Amino acid sequence: MKYGIVIFPPKRIQDFANSYRKRYDSHYALIPPHITLKYPFEADEEQLKEITKELRRIAAETPPIPIKVTKFSSFYPTSNIIYLKVEPNDVLERLHEQLHSGLFAGKPEFVFVPHITIGRDLPGAEYADVYSQLKLQEVHFEETVDRFHLLYQLENGSWTVYETFVVGGKETV
Amino acid sequence: MKYGIVIFPPKRIQDFANSYRKRYDSHYALIPPHITLKYPFEADEEQLKEITKELRRIAAETPPIPIKVTKFSSFYPTSNIIYLKVEPNDVLERLHEQLHSGLFAGKPEFVFVPHITIGRDLPGAEYADVYSQLKLQEVHFEETVDRFHLLYQLENGSWTVYETFVVGGKETV
Repeated sequence: MKYGIVIFPPKRIQDFANSYRKRYDSHYALIPPHITLKYPFEADEEQLKEITKELRRIAAETPPIPIKVTKFSSFYPTSNIIYLKVEPNDVLERLHEQLHSGLFAGKPEFVFVPHITIGRDLPGAEYADVYSQLKLQEVHFEETVDRFHLLYQLENGSWTVYETFVVGGKETV
Repeated sequence: MKYGIVIFPPKRIQDFANSYRKRYDSHYALIPPHITLKYPFEADEEQLKEITKELRRIAAETPPIPIKVTKFSSFYPTSNIIYLKVEPNDVLERLHEQLHSGLFAGKPEFVFVPHITIGRDLPGAEYADVYSQLKLQEVHFEETVDRFHLLYQLENGSWTVYETFVVGGKETV
């Protein structure tokens, strides 16, 4: 089964993101707005037990996660993805690092650029038009989240939450 | 904010349900296939803390939940909803009861008929046509799930998971 690990930002950020995703994101119906911490990976039932145990351990020693959204940005020319930029911070960086070492070993596919995708798969001309307008728009959200989620993918490409991990259960070891 | 409590059945049941929902369920893109334990209710931040605490307590004393799907059925003439029938059992009944008493007091809106909706909002003729075919189809799934989820609704009508509650943490009090 295919799994992924994400943060769902607070509702008002999700609502804001969805107001754009509805028009511009082909994944709009597949998953709520999210910050990807770990891209899709395969795991079987046996590994899943180890994974959830490890995620509980990581969550327990992770403090609340600051989520500061500052502007629209884009991965162009690597891809046509338009996203809400989430300012990097130590907590996010550390969490991402932990989800790519130890049990989760393996180089991340990309440098970690925390973001909430709001547009993808747009044709070149539409991409340029949409992005040129969005990048001028002011955006400012500053929130804190206290949880992340392990999801699995269904056959239709959509994602269902397997488990929530609430952070801050205990002091950093 | 509006919350709901559901069980996501195992992936193969979700995939089976989605193969019908895609065509027949107007909520297909809003939420994965699910068994509703508690219909949408309003709660504020303060209540949310009490609610999650209570759900953890309930989960801890709930044993693994048998999910036996036996056939297609319908709520006609009450509504045009077509669903996969989930056989009632003591664990589901007890869980439903606990989610409608104590902190969650308030009569359930309907008698509890555990089900996974796969069709809704179909025009009368289409409903009759689809249901007459589905009700003849054999269905048999027998699984066990060990978790349920508290969700909240976004402005676009879709649902995001707030928290997972794993059952069976301790013996029944």
